[in-house]
Amino acid sequence: MHRYRTHTCGALRPSDVGASVRLSGWCHRIRDHGGVLFIDLRDHYGLTQCVVDSDSPAFKAANAVRSEWVVRLDGRVRTRPAGTENPELPTGAVEVYIDELEVLGAAAELPLPVFGDLEYPEETRLRYRFLDLRREKLHANIMKRGAIVDSLRRRMREGGFFEFQTPILTASSPEGARDYLVPSRVHPGKFYALPQAPQQFKQLTMIAGFDRYFQIAPCFRDEDARADRSPGEFYQLDIEMSFVTQEDVFQAVEPVLHGVFKEFAGEKRVTDVFPRITYADAMLKYGVDKPDLRNPLLIADVTEEFADDAVEFKAFKGVIKSGGVVRAIPATGAATQPRSFFDKLNDFARAEGAPGLGYVVFEEVDGALAGKGPIAKFIPAPILTRIAEKTGTKAGDAVFFSAGTEAKAAALAGKARIRIGDDLGLSDKDQFAFCWITDFPMFEWNEDEKHIDFSHNPFSMPNFDHDAFLALGEGDDAKILDIKAFQYDIVCNGIELSSGAIRNHKPEIMEKAFAIAGYGKDVLEAKFGGMLNALRLGAPPHGGIAPGVDRIVMLLCEEPNIREVVLFPMNQRAEDLMMGAPSEATPKQLRELHIRLNLPEKKA
Amino acid sequence: MHRYRTHTCGALRPSDVGASVRLSGWCHRIRDHGGVLFIDLRDHYGLTQCVVDSDSPAFKAANAVRSEWVVRLDGRVRTRPAGTENPELPTGAVEVYIDELEVLGAAAELPLPVFGDLEYPEETRLRYRFLDLRREKLHANIMKRGAIVDSLRRRMREGGFFEFQTPILTASSPEGARDYLVPSRVHPGKFYALPQAPQQFKQLTMIAGFDRYFQIAPCFRDEDARADRSPGEFYQLDIEMSFVTQEDVFQAVEPVLHGVFKEFAGEKRVTDVFPRITYADAMLKYGVDKPDLRNPLLIADVTEEFADDAVEFKAFKGVIKSGGVVRAIPATGAATQPRSFFDKLNDFARAEGAPGLGYVVFEEVDGALAGKGPIAKFIPAPILTRIAEKTGTKAGDAVFFSAGTEAKAAALAGKARIRIGDDLGLSDKDQFAFCWITDFPMFEWNEDEKHIDFSHNPFSMPNFDHDAFLALGEGDDAKILDIKAFQYDIVCNGIELSSGAIRNHKPEIMEKAFAIAGYGKDVLEAKFGGMLNALRLGAPPHGGIAPGVDRIVMLLCEEPNIREVVLFPMNQRAEDLMMGAPSEATPKQLRELHIRLNLPEKKA
Repeated sequence: MHRYRTHTCGALRPSDVGASVRLSGWCHRIRDHGGVLFIDLRDHYGLTQCVVDSDSPAFKAANAVRSEWVVRLDGRVRTRPAGTENPELPTGAVEVYIDELEVLGAAAELPLPVFGDLEYPEETRLRYRFLDLRREKLHANIMKRGAIVDSLRRRMREGGFFEFQTPILTASSPEGARDYLVPSRVHPGKFYALPQAPQQFKQLTMIAGFDRYFQIAPCFRDEDARADRSPGEFYQLDIEMSFVTQEDVFQAVEPVLHGVFKEFAGEKRVTDVFPRITYADAMLKYGVDKPDLRNPLLIADVTEEFADDAVEFKAFKGVIKSGGVVRAIPATGAATQPRSFFDKLNDFARAEGAPGLGYVVFEEVDGALAGKGPIAKFIPAPILTRIAEKTGTKAGDAVFFSAGTEAKAAALAGKARIRIGDDLGLSDKDQFAFCWITDFPMFEWNEDEKHIDFSHNPFSMPNFDHDAFLALGEGDDAKILDIKAFQYDIVCNGIELSSGAIRNHKPEIMEKAFAIAGYGKDVLEAKFGGMLNALRLGAPPHGGIAPGVDRIVMLLCEEPNIREVVLFPMNQRAEDLMMGAPSEATPKQLRELHIRLNLPEKKA
Repeated sequence: MHRYRTHTCGALRPSDVGASVRLSGWCHRIRDHGGVLFIDLRDHYGLTQCVVDSDSPAFKAANAVRSEWVVRLDGRVRTRPAGTENPELPTGAVEVYIDELEVLGAAAELPLPVFGDLEYPEETRLRYRFLDLRREKLHANIMKRGAIVDSLRRRMREGGFFEFQTPILTASSPEGARDYLVPSRVHPGKFYALPQAPQQFKQLTMIAGFDRYFQIAPCFRDEDARADRSPGEFYQLDIEMSFVTQEDVFQAVEPVLHGVFKEFAGEKRVTDVFPRITYADAMLKYGVDKPDLRNPLLIADVTEEFADDAVEFKAFKGVIKSGGVVRAIPATGAATQPRSFFDKLNDFARAEGAPGLGYVVFEEVDGALAGKGPIAKFIPAPILTRIAEKTGTKAGDAVFFSAGTEAKAAALAGKARIRIGDDLGLSDKDQFAFCWITDFPMFEWNEDEKHIDFSHNPFSMPNFDHDAFLALGEGDDAKILDIKAFQYDIVCNGIELSSGAIRNHKPEIMEKAFAIAGYGKDVLEAKFGGMLNALRLGAPPHGGIAPGVDRIVMLLCEEPNIREVVLFPMNQRAEDLMMGAPSEATPKQLRELHIRLNLPEKKA
């Protein structure tokens, strides 16, 4: 017989009745039914009910064990008495009568119980993470995370990608967040950086000719914690491909994400073909570049309608005159909502810094559409009809208006759209609704500094004839600001899983792009010289993306907090309370690393 | 037609003759045969011969391209002229006649050619790693590394293991090497450490109840470079299991290693059942705890023989009297070797700090075994016969002797064994010869400090009754020094792939073990308090191992240098010459991290 177990705690079935077995596990729950002791023995694989009474030589030993003690027990499998079966447990038809019990690992008093669903403070849970991880939900989340990562890997390999490991001790990368630095012992005064992403290495892997790269890559950003990002480290499904267009990236990534979501989404639906929405369209129709497509409402621009001389609503007229826009958010079926629904939306708008949300409620009067509400009287019937057409509304619906500069009006409309959809219960939450956002602008006008600047990623390839791009000059600002980049986002349920791009692999185009944004060759060489050198020695066209693994797992586990899907997370203050990190270094360590402390002065 | 390719450069076959195709890749080799230009176009998947002459509109463009330019070309597949086929190339029966050619990425003058086998200096190769990686052998090594890692993962999963990601920003771990430190911005004066191994986290994963852990884990040690270890980071196949004995670990790991070696070993044989050799036996028979079993020679102890009164060899007698030993290394068939063979072995021994290697050559004289050589005359025939029996030698063989303290004699014998085996060509190199080394001593006598110390890993479980262990006291030194640990090594071809152990999961046994080695509870609590706390809250028996991934890949790629199997390695001075790491930090970064530099004074 094996030293510790013949079966796991999830294995026994009625066909095992009569067998002598050995189990090991944690005492999940112990009940004393007047001289009969029930021990629910738990391991990774399941739970088995074990029983002992005073007839057993193990009774005394069993009486001494407490919750979460680890024991080995020998016994006989028997059918549970009629009426005591537990159909929800795979082992629920049987129990083990204990003949012998050995304590393998005792437990002191528990700071956090494993059995039961009581909420415990975050700090306690993290300090005793190894106990918290024994609890059913968290244990299941972590196992699901592992299965999701396995599935991502398998699907990438099936898609013809190869996994590589890129360096973790490396040089600072131009990702824009704060680096973690590692002092070098061998090179006094110099530092490694932990990669914010393996962006340059994956591009170099393409330039080295490997064609299809992926990695479940650890990434490090010294940024303050957010609910959806661990302080310190996070993982991304890092992807890069050579000799591809943007469409090839979509065709490679879409089946992977669709497949893994289908596999782990349970009953929820998953978008079959991910719609592609241009950045401009997204900002117009959803007021945001990461639209939540579970919400069916579409924002419409009604600037033209409010600019019409027939409309007398002065507030909007003023906005339009000073270059602003008016956006309309439909509120399907809102006519039957109580006054409080409209008031709360106004309160929300004010909390967002807007003067309010004007609205019109549509009703049918004598077979024709009519408007109701505070500003309806300023809008003549033909204009109301046009607004209804543009927003797809009809009698029984309402339309809210957001006016202001294009950016502000769009942003407020976007937030109002989500709020209205939720308040009216219009969003079908039983789905993972994906989309691609495409055609991000390459440049934008920096109003503060009065010059053209990069809009998003300076390393994306402009979607523009290369010779024409090189010929752009002083007077071409309007043309330049209209250039789109081969840059895209993948969005699910309003959450951006990743940005991606076809990279700028041509040094001369990159120099031109940086020149347009006001950077000299010297800056480019100083900051990205290594990469430029590589591009100058035979670089293929390439592009990629890097969906966040933690975010994917959070979506699929339906957990809003990343700490519920990471094995050993740090707390919000970037501390590992269990292991005591960060901690002080010894003077010898500091000396070896050629640094000394430079502590803030203590407050008096 | 796709923007860049209809086929990869490895795809075209005779069945494609007549097709219009588009290929993209690097110009591997360009040959001008008097107005006919041959371009061997290369990508990750293969090589295709492309041809152009002055009849083609692409001739001018093709004439301009140089080695390693990336081009896209359109053309027609045709059969190669009879006699010019290349049977070694999958595409060798066809060629592509170029109708159109587009330069996708030009290349400046190459600091390192891709075509050809010329050796280049290490520094050049690392600085232009992306070029070096395009070369056939290195490209193949890196792809093989990926396939090996995939195979390890698959085999671990099939063995019921789950993959987890443990933290990289963590606390210092007690592995004994130097940590890389990461200054904390949020906690002035405190530091994270990069894990030397996820040892504590994998144990905590077991204590958390996950049962079967593995990870292709990045590990970090700030140690100086060696041929078989990258400076900085390396990877291990980290494994841990609960409710297991040492034998269970062997049964889990052996099929994984056997399987992956079988899969990638090519023609080489792989040990079917890994022999288990105790540490004591290994030190005796192989003179080392990582025996190379490709070498068939077995060392024997002949102290008793040389101690015999009938032997008159004074040098060995003196060694034995002062507590030393004599070890005999057989040299099968050495009798026919020239004098220089024996002289060189003596030189080798002197270079190792020994006075020399005594030896006897066996010959048959009148049907009986007789000895020849400098010391033969001191050894009477019956003793010679006993030595021959112990070493398995016969007429025509020789035996070498190593005398000294047990440690020194064993070590010299071990080295002589390898040397003799190689010189005589006895080692069969066409194999991967595995073994387990078991029963390492738990403690050893520290002669310098005159006390009992840990012999190897303080966290292994002693192979000793737990109650009896707790009862050990002052007078039990001999008993204590005899205690073995549940600790083991896995060795292949004389290379230690990993140590492993059944862990000490009982706090009281750990406290006792540390007390025996002279450490108080306070030391234990201060250094390993987090782990002890976890062990006190219900820990299962558990154990594991962590074979080095880089070493496995080196063996399977037959590369003695780790830089040939790592994608982007650092150089010996722990620098990434391509990316420029490590580099200087900005004053702002240092301020934010609460450190300042403490540079060594410049030499005048």
